[in-house]
Amino acid sequence: MPQPPTVPADERAIRIAEAVRAGDVRAAARLMRDLDDRLADAQQVLRLLWPLTGRAYVVGVTGNPGAGKSTVVDGLIAHYRREGRRVGVVSIDPSSPFSGGALLGDRIRMQRHATDEGVFIRSLATRGHLGGLSRSTSEVVAVLDAMGFDPILVETVGVGQAEVDVVAQADTTVVVTVPGLGDEVQAIKAGLLEVADVLVVNKADREGADRSVRDLMTMLELRRHSGGEPEPVEIIKTVALRGEGIAELAAAIGRHRQRIQPMGEARRRRRAADELRAALLEHIGQRIAQLLRTHADVVEAVAARQVDPFSAAEALVQELVKV
Amino acid sequence: MPQPPTVPADERAIRIAEAVRAGDVRAAARLMRDLDDRLADAQQVLRLLWPLTGRAYVVGVTGNPGAGKSTVVDGLIAHYRREGRRVGVVSIDPSSPFSGGALLGDRIRMQRHATDEGVFIRSLATRGHLGGLSRSTSEVVAVLDAMGFDPILVETVGVGQAEVDVVAQADTTVVVTVPGLGDEVQAIKAGLLEVADVLVVNKADREGADRSVRDLMTMLELRRHSGGEPEPVEIIKTVALRGEGIAELAAAIGRHRQRIQPMGEARRRRRAADELRAALLEHIGQRIAQLLRTHADVVEAVAARQVDPFSAAEALVQELVKV
Repeated sequence: MPQPPTVPADERAIRIAEAVRAGDVRAAARLMRDLDDRLADAQQVLRLLWPLTGRAYVVGVTGNPGAGKSTVVDGLIAHYRREGRRVGVVSIDPSSPFSGGALLGDRIRMQRHATDEGVFIRSLATRGHLGGLSRSTSEVVAVLDAMGFDPILVETVGVGQAEVDVVAQADTTVVVTVPGLGDEVQAIKAGLLEVADVLVVNKADREGADRSVRDLMTMLELRRHSGGEPEPVEIIKTVALRGEGIAELAAAIGRHRQRIQPMGEARRRRRAADELRAALLEHIGQRIAQLLRTHADVVEAVAARQVDPFSAAEALVQELVKV
Repeated sequence: MPQPPTVPADERAIRIAEAVRAGDVRAAARLMRDLDDRLADAQQVLRLLWPLTGRAYVVGVTGNPGAGKSTVVDGLIAHYRREGRRVGVVSIDPSSPFSGGALLGDRIRMQRHATDEGVFIRSLATRGHLGGLSRSTSEVVAVLDAMGFDPILVETVGVGQAEVDVVAQADTTVVVTVPGLGDEVQAIKAGLLEVADVLVVNKADREGADRSVRDLMTMLELRRHSGGEPEPVEIIKTVALRGEGIAELAAAIGRHRQRIQPMGEARRRRRAADELRAALLEHIGQRIAQLLRTHADVVEAVAARQVDPFSAAEALVQELVKV
């Protein structure tokens, strides 16, 4: 029986890349899913799209659950849409309405963008290993970028190194907090402040908003004195639920963009190194899994406390890595 | 001029290991710091201590900030102290009072253990990369274990893959939530439920506690039906601030310990594999950094969008890894 005519893989990849570039939303969603599943064809498509990427401005938005991060993102989407820009959103936060993890009220509020062709929202699982989260984010950002979405908002919960890494790759990183949550400020102290380019005090109609702003200013002052970079960090008060302060936030993001323009080359190189590192780690994670399978005896010896894992790893690494 | 007599490195390591084994708290604290700084001598000491490890029971406690996780840990410390056991605590949560990130009130509450020689508390930074957090935790647990602390409580904030990985390595993993926080339940849904051996609804005097318990039971039921393991997960209500429910929690941990006894061998092997993987990743992370330094031209090409990071990584990985 004659085989049905098949399209060669390369030609198929070119067709998909063309469809995505032309704005075919379903083709793009399928490509993102296939990239997540690590299909070789999808990788091929991404390579074809690559020269079209690197144009969109990427804004990271982070902060602890409860700070109203998603409402701030929602406000920014509406703001950029009014400016006629097509907005991409990548959500890496299990508690975010963009990730489908919201209470009903939030979800209804988000619906207004769901039918807007100028907005493309993609959520990612937080279960990334070995740079996997970082890679998945880069890939989705690249597809949105090739489709002409600009800006691209990357929303992530601000706890955990992988999440902080992802948001630190953005061009401008916005860290959202709220008044009166001692814990939140403590958490910011512990790491997020370092990556913040713009700070937002949301729910600023609450008591204690001005004190939060003063506390953050003190922290920034301490950071400056402890030899950190002298780059100014703006603090913006918002009541995102009512849209208040969102235009000011967008303006502050714009000013940060202006300020980093001269450093664009260095930032691009750093991001390239990060992307390379993530891709390398993914390769190597597979090799490590393989190595541990073929050396069940070593795992057994570690489990029996006959050898410590560090000595065992030193021996095994010789088999894995070239000198 | 004659040199002052020096003690050979091996002999020094033996002396330190002996001091730590005998319970010298200052020697132990110094060893933990030196391990963090990756000093070769400290590694040597840890190898000497290794045969003494693997005895302590490790309890992981996790949950989002605000769930009262630290108060639960505080209650468990007091409980085990009353049983005459010496308790080790490893805290990997920037918002925890054990990590020095607490509000004043919390810190005062914790002071009661600070002067108790039967409690050893060590906090770790959350900024672990490439399995670094997991390795640091293993090392501190190993030192506490060799010193005879048992149980060892590992407290970590429950968001982020690295943190979940750490807590999943414990013998019994306790996940703490509170009533009425939709977000918390969502976050649990998104990953923590999978690693929970015992669930705690803290602040159970609040409205909605019974509903939280019912919600969690429904989720556990769903997990069971979706082909997950049939292992029962107990749900315990606590008001940790008043010590209520802590004895019941300790009993539930004890029952889980009994239940997993027959699977002890498999769990030990899995943990050994995890420790090996973390140690391997640490070696390889250093190699990757080196590789990217010697191939600045490749980084440059990625930054200029001449090549995508995935193709570049495929080429570079040949230089790094043996076939």
